[in-house]
Amino acid sequence: MRNLTMMTDLYQLTMMYGYYKEGKMDQQVVFDLFFRKPDSMVSSYAIAAGLEQVVEYIENLRFSADDIDFLRGLELFDEGFLALLEKFEFTGDIYAIPEGTPIFPKEPIVRVKAPIFQAQFIETAMLNIINHQTLIATKASRVVHAAMGDSVMEFGLRRAQGPDAGIYGARAAIIGGCSSTSNVLTAQMFGTAASGTHAHSWVMSFADELEAFRAYAKCFPKNCLLLVDTYDTLKSGVPNAIKVFRELRARGYEPVGIRLDSGDLAYLSKQARRMLDDAGFPNTKIVASNDLDEDTIWHLKAQGAKIDVWGVGTALITSKDCPALGGVYKLAAEEQDGVLVPKMKISENPEKMTNPGYKKVVRLFEKASGKAIADVVMLDEEIIDESKPLEIFHPVETWKRMTVTDFTYRELLQPVFVEGKKVYQAIPLKEISEYAKKEIGCFWDEYTRIIRPSEYKVDLSQKLWEMKDSLLKSNRSRTAK
Amino acid sequence: MRNLTMMTDLYQLTMMYGYYKEGKMDQQVVFDLFFRKPDSMVSSYAIAAGLEQVVEYIENLRFSADDIDFLRGLELFDEGFLALLEKFEFTGDIYAIPEGTPIFPKEPIVRVKAPIFQAQFIETAMLNIINHQTLIATKASRVVHAAMGDSVMEFGLRRAQGPDAGIYGARAAIIGGCSSTSNVLTAQMFGTAASGTHAHSWVMSFADELEAFRAYAKCFPKNCLLLVDTYDTLKSGVPNAIKVFRELRARGYEPVGIRLDSGDLAYLSKQARRMLDDAGFPNTKIVASNDLDEDTIWHLKAQGAKIDVWGVGTALITSKDCPALGGVYKLAAEEQDGVLVPKMKISENPEKMTNPGYKKVVRLFEKASGKAIADVVMLDEEIIDESKPLEIFHPVETWKRMTVTDFTYRELLQPVFVEGKKVYQAIPLKEISEYAKKEIGCFWDEYTRIIRPSEYKVDLSQKLWEMKDSLLKSNRSRTAK
Repeated sequence: MRNLTMMTDLYQLTMMYGYYKEGKMDQQVVFDLFFRKPDSMVSSYAIAAGLEQVVEYIENLRFSADDIDFLRGLELFDEGFLALLEKFEFTGDIYAIPEGTPIFPKEPIVRVKAPIFQAQFIETAMLNIINHQTLIATKASRVVHAAMGDSVMEFGLRRAQGPDAGIYGARAAIIGGCSSTSNVLTAQMFGTAASGTHAHSWVMSFADELEAFRAYAKCFPKNCLLLVDTYDTLKSGVPNAIKVFRELRARGYEPVGIRLDSGDLAYLSKQARRMLDDAGFPNTKIVASNDLDEDTIWHLKAQGAKIDVWGVGTALITSKDCPALGGVYKLAAEEQDGVLVPKMKISENPEKMTNPGYKKVVRLFEKASGKAIADVVMLDEEIIDESKPLEIFHPVETWKRMTVTDFTYRELLQPVFVEGKKVYQAIPLKEISEYAKKEIGCFWDEYTRIIRPSEYKVDLSQKLWEMKDSLLKSNRSRTAK
Repeated sequence: MRNLTMMTDLYQLTMMYGYYKEGKMDQQVVFDLFFRKPDSMVSSYAIAAGLEQVVEYIENLRFSADDIDFLRGLELFDEGFLALLEKFEFTGDIYAIPEGTPIFPKEPIVRVKAPIFQAQFIETAMLNIINHQTLIATKASRVVHAAMGDSVMEFGLRRAQGPDAGIYGARAAIIGGCSSTSNVLTAQMFGTAASGTHAHSWVMSFADELEAFRAYAKCFPKNCLLLVDTYDTLKSGVPNAIKVFRELRARGYEPVGIRLDSGDLAYLSKQARRMLDDAGFPNTKIVASNDLDEDTIWHLKAQGAKIDVWGVGTALITSKDCPALGGVYKLAAEEQDGVLVPKMKISENPEKMTNPGYKKVVRLFEKASGKAIADVVMLDEEIIDESKPLEIFHPVETWKRMTVTDFTYRELLQPVFVEGKKVYQAIPLKEISEYAKKEIGCFWDEYTRIIRPSEYKVDLSQKLWEMKDSLLKSNRSRTAK
């Protein structure tokens, strides 16, 4: 397994050195990982992803002798510090929202409680992994939503930002709802379906299209899906495909279908569908690709395109319109004299203030419909009594209030590491993907609309709100001095 | 070293199976890897990057027994094919334009000549690696251009699309001209400078800012760069930094400078510069960060911002405005009866047509200035005579002609693998970066302008143009039948 220990920002190491020199490296602190909604992000929600790789990262944390030598060569650190790195391991607690869960801005996705020396160190890699996979799972979820039940295949590997972006991006795409990936390595690593048939180069490498199709059908009689747009889709591609499909049927096999990769996909798919139906192949599928994204799919479907399966590449694997999630990792509390003291980042901009304390996230559901009502961020020790009405309110515009009755709830943060011991059980990708599908189904359409969705409520408990308010006030009086 | 053999699109394997079943797997073919200018790409040029990782990929190509088992389980392939994969290796020729070279749309960056079984297989991974690194090197080059000689530090790791995007993205950023990266692993792997000091969390973990600065200066007296915007940049951060800088000087150390990470960077940097100068620290540096990109840097500089070093994260590491390069890999020739027959993709759209044949790329330079004049794509066997005037012309608007005299030229494609043997010598990253700087210096400002640059000429030789024209005409007469 890959060791990413050295994949960190240098300033984590210089800060750790500082904490060590200042004699405070063992101070217990709490950090929250959460995202703020980036400017270019249209979605109201995100789909949590990447936790499994974070767990692997934490488990594999180990500085090799070469690493220590390299760090020594930087001439920044003393030998005492390097000796500490040599035996570095994670001994703290990590709670996280399970992969596949819809998540919202400003709620802790991961909560770390550990000595500052460790909690600080793991920031960069954790953000890198979760920012990436959550971004792609979210984009995939939007694309799948636009496809309204049709299958979506991920095939952006060649345009992904490097091998991992292809490999783990495809994993995240499956979490977000894609039914398969073209990436064979992802299929192998995570036991998911691989898909793909042939490219234009296959057709071009034969004297003509019919010969190319025949050869393909001969090799793959049970998986015969033909790319029909190399020369002329309706005049050559579809008629040749039908010819070969008839030959195939005569040999006792049913064809899978055709793929369109250029031209007007609404028009061509309708024409091709009619031609296939008329020829006696109503069960063949039409697969479409060519720079698709959720908006194009939505509009093609609105125009009645006869497309059964969507192949999505660049726009999905890079989350083209918003290629970074912007998750952050902020100090929420630190232990002083054995007590956790809440901490928060003060800012002129209320959007940039963080939530202090050791917190949890609770999702409320309507008992009758099973639909999600709101999330409430609260202190870890708080308890919800389902038998009583619960008043929730907007954390900034506090006059916006609502009383919830007949609800159930679920705590979203689950233990992953407890006192350095892994308690997380890896979940097969297929199960994560099924869970994600079920969970996103708990949200009203208003929140999953791919354009201008409603904002889902993420409120603070009364107690947390009061803690935050009093920290704000005491800071004001302190800085006013 | 990592083995990425299985990182491929499934359709490469199904096509290979088809070539094998059709008895044409050993047919020699030529593929060109090149990019077309993507819609959202502002740059007229790109900076070639990623070749070293492609070489590693090719060298490490090897299907393990587990890989073969997995492929067997797909129930698509026969045992004869799996046996071929078991002993798969690359035996062909690869020529490539060296990393760090400015490259332009539609010229072959990599030219592969190999049996179709192999040439087809390596497409996906090669595109993945080169698309990614070339994209980021190009973005970095633009950012560095905007900084007009100031240092640019890459520090986007936490927002990169997964570990590789962070690791190799930072490598590409150095090729594109960044002076350092925050990524310790990249610094270790490629012997480049790592940079970074401390975050807001350092300051927040102390009772007050002054104490935090003092502690930092005590730990790093020789590398004292202080982040001054945690509370109030001009009222608290800079005055506290100056206090600590005086104490540092009294101990015999000169401070490095300050970092601004929020607010109006033009205004704050000018005020901070004046305060530092007045306090007797005119040699301290001002480092700025906060969602920077080439456009913001350009405008901040135009307004006289007193910033010496720029830290660039998300926008660079994801190439935010254009997160995919869109390189493609197209069949250019195939051997028939021992002769290479040119092939091309015909399209209604002249922009989408490919250039046929076994080609090379020649860059012409003005003898007097050393500046690049144009690139000419020509057949590999063609020879240029520098002693004679050379007429070049636009490949589509052929009436646009120009006669070049007093020129030198250089062939850009260099041998990397010859008959499967690696002839490529790895080049230290520092050298690649110096070469890139020199090479981009050969281009007039018109081509490197960060907005609406002029289009650099990429012409075809007369001979290649005629070959293409005749293929087009014969195809027209063939499809007209």
